[in-house]
Amino acid sequence: MEIITGGVTAAKGFWAAGVEAGIKYQNRKDMAMVYSKTPCRAAGVFTTNVVKAAPVLWDKEVVESEWEAQAIVVNSGIANACTGKLGYEYCRETAGAAADALEISPQSVLICSTGVIGMQLPMEKMTEGVRMLAKAIKPGEEVGTDAAKAIMTTDTRNKQVAVKVTIGGKEVTIGGMCKGSGMIHPNMCTMLAFVTTDVNISKKLLQEALSADVQDTFNMVSVDGDTSTNDTLLVLANGQAGNHEITEKGADYDTFVEALHYVNETLAKKIAGDGEGATALFEVKVIHADNKEDAKTLAKSVITSSLTKAALFGHDANWGRILCALGYSGAKFDPEAIELYLESSAGKILIFKDGMAADYSEEEATRILSCSEVTALVDMKMGEAEATAWGCDLTYDYVKINADYRS
Amino acid sequence: MEIITGGVTAAKGFWAAGVEAGIKYQNRKDMAMVYSKTPCRAAGVFTTNVVKAAPVLWDKEVVESEWEAQAIVVNSGIANACTGKLGYEYCRETAGAAADALEISPQSVLICSTGVIGMQLPMEKMTEGVRMLAKAIKPGEEVGTDAAKAIMTTDTRNKQVAVKVTIGGKEVTIGGMCKGSGMIHPNMCTMLAFVTTDVNISKKLLQEALSADVQDTFNMVSVDGDTSTNDTLLVLANGQAGNHEITEKGADYDTFVEALHYVNETLAKKIAGDGEGATALFEVKVIHADNKEDAKTLAKSVITSSLTKAALFGHDANWGRILCALGYSGAKFDPEAIELYLESSAGKILIFKDGMAADYSEEEATRILSCSEVTALVDMKMGEAEATAWGCDLTYDYVKINADYRS
Repeated sequence: MEIITGGVTAAKGFWAAGVEAGIKYQNRKDMAMVYSKTPCRAAGVFTTNVVKAAPVLWDKEVVESEWEAQAIVVNSGIANACTGKLGYEYCRETAGAAADALEISPQSVLICSTGVIGMQLPMEKMTEGVRMLAKAIKPGEEVGTDAAKAIMTTDTRNKQVAVKVTIGGKEVTIGGMCKGSGMIHPNMCTMLAFVTTDVNISKKLLQEALSADVQDTFNMVSVDGDTSTNDTLLVLANGQAGNHEITEKGADYDTFVEALHYVNETLAKKIAGDGEGATALFEVKVIHADNKEDAKTLAKSVITSSLTKAALFGHDANWGRILCALGYSGAKFDPEAIELYLESSAGKILIFKDGMAADYSEEEATRILSCSEVTALVDMKMGEAEATAWGCDLTYDYVKINADYRS
Repeated sequence: MEIITGGVTAAKGFWAAGVEAGIKYQNRKDMAMVYSKTPCRAAGVFTTNVVKAAPVLWDKEVVESEWEAQAIVVNSGIANACTGKLGYEYCRETAGAAADALEISPQSVLICSTGVIGMQLPMEKMTEGVRMLAKAIKPGEEVGTDAAKAIMTTDTRNKQVAVKVTIGGKEVTIGGMCKGSGMIHPNMCTMLAFVTTDVNISKKLLQEALSADVQDTFNMVSVDGDTSTNDTLLVLANGQAGNHEITEKGADYDTFVEALHYVNETLAKKIAGDGEGATALFEVKVIHADNKEDAKTLAKSVITSSLTKAALFGHDANWGRILCALGYSGAKFDPEAIELYLESSAGKILIFKDGMAADYSEEEATRILSCSEVTALVDMKMGEAEATAWGCDLTYDYVKINADYRS
């Protein structure tokens, strides 16, 4: 697997654009389009929130149908959630406008929105934005970055990744972009993420690969424990790599899954590290757990603990809070048996063993916790299962951003 | 039921004291004792965290045995959690010192600690503190307040309550004190709470009344979603009211339970309103839910949402976050059917109906959200079940307090 530059436009036949449509933000790109010159097999995973945004309902229909998808239209600023029947009608209108401009069918247009809940979209601006996007789309990294910037809300940086693998003698590319920041605690997938690939694969296997992989990637990320109404992860595969179609599991499928996993995990970590107000990426690795489910539960419990997150912000090795979060996770274990390490580019130290503090230096612990990526390694000493979760620290800026997000 | 002044010393025969033992804090009271002149039936509920502090293990043994309890010793500053076998030994030593000084049995001494996890207690100071407490205990509101102050950590005010009822022609008093602040998401009971009563009731019914009532009171409170290692709620009943012993359910039991509920709910709300860094008490009432479990799940999901809590701090009527938190709670409902109101001493308005924003004034919403106690009322329009949960806003001060709690 080769890691390359580029995002959603890295794979063959994928074009993109980002434009200023003035939906809610001023003086920045706020609408994006991803377009494949040929129809794609589409797979998707969506929020499990009972309150689903209108575009989530629209996209589920498209992805679960036999239709092939060819375009994704995204706006930032307004989430089109809690907007009633009118909100859904606006999705249909947006898809219709894109279909007209691109000369494709409305059922092949996927729609995503992110931003404030409860406001209606300004439809004139939306349809004008779609028209601008249809004119602006082209191949290349530059427009991929435009699109990645246009979907941001409180994100501080755009998030892209791409890799190349060889499948059936053909070069296959997978690229992706996503946005995260706040209201991030995906329960099927994260806020908005888009993966494009030129692989030739059956729709059934594409969905299966995606559904399985999100469990270990996007679903292991949390910024604030709030599962959004808009979480959407879409994968488009247009088959232009020319490999023999992957229709069953085997070496080709495994190669694709491995590359997809790298793309998903990289995007997921980018979301965690750029959580609202975050100054550090916080990784929690649980090893030697009794079973996979417990390993995931334990890891997620620690990355969602407000107290642990605030201590990380303060570079304070308050490991008792990590123990506490493991303890209330719901998983059973013997606190006397486990070991806890803290690790970063500044070093690695044993913090807790035999039910009490290990003999470590506070100074060294603070040095380790002052890095921009910090890992807590928990050895459960029980079995062979492991899991990793990603979060971030809890900061003044998280409160500031969210105390008055709408204005 | 008559609401009276006083806390743990309100009921007949209960004495208390608070002293400066210098455990970790300087120049403030940090050890408390509650003492009954005669042996008491004791009931208790404790943290469900797998990682249990040493005093929790000690107290569970006492409460679950046939022993009658007569004293509670509490220290603040150090939690005696994650302290291994030595931590438990220190509980035994503390109980022994109290037993010697009070001339009672060590098995009738309950021990509670709150503060930093992972540090060992300075035992010389602890035993000296116990001796000072045994000399200082006496009846009266003043020493009750001393005790309530001594158990505080980051609490900004002491928390007490007392009520009088008539049972079997006799005046029965129930009083209590508690401390809360951070790491508050009780799952059986909250951080530390102590209720004293002179009622005459069987140990079995006392425990039954307590275990049932915490489900609707302390277990419905959350400051930060972190279930502590030390959560303990103890009730001592010394029977000095002289009522005929309550040994079965009936009118007397109901009167006692109603009074106990008032005491527990009042203490629980005091903990929520004085959560770390909090500027407001946030109450979420869910009515007309399909069943009680769903009602509780929905209410707790909203009060633990970081985004909702931050919006409350900003007096921002970002109701979409409340809808979102209801939606990811796990309870099933139809978002198009429910109604959401915001209410405080400044008024009450309908915010959300028919799946979208109601026609309300943002100015009025902000006015309502600017009060020190705010209620979100959610009408699920499904059945007859209801539940109330209590939390607080998420503020800069929460982050400040917890970024460097140990220093």
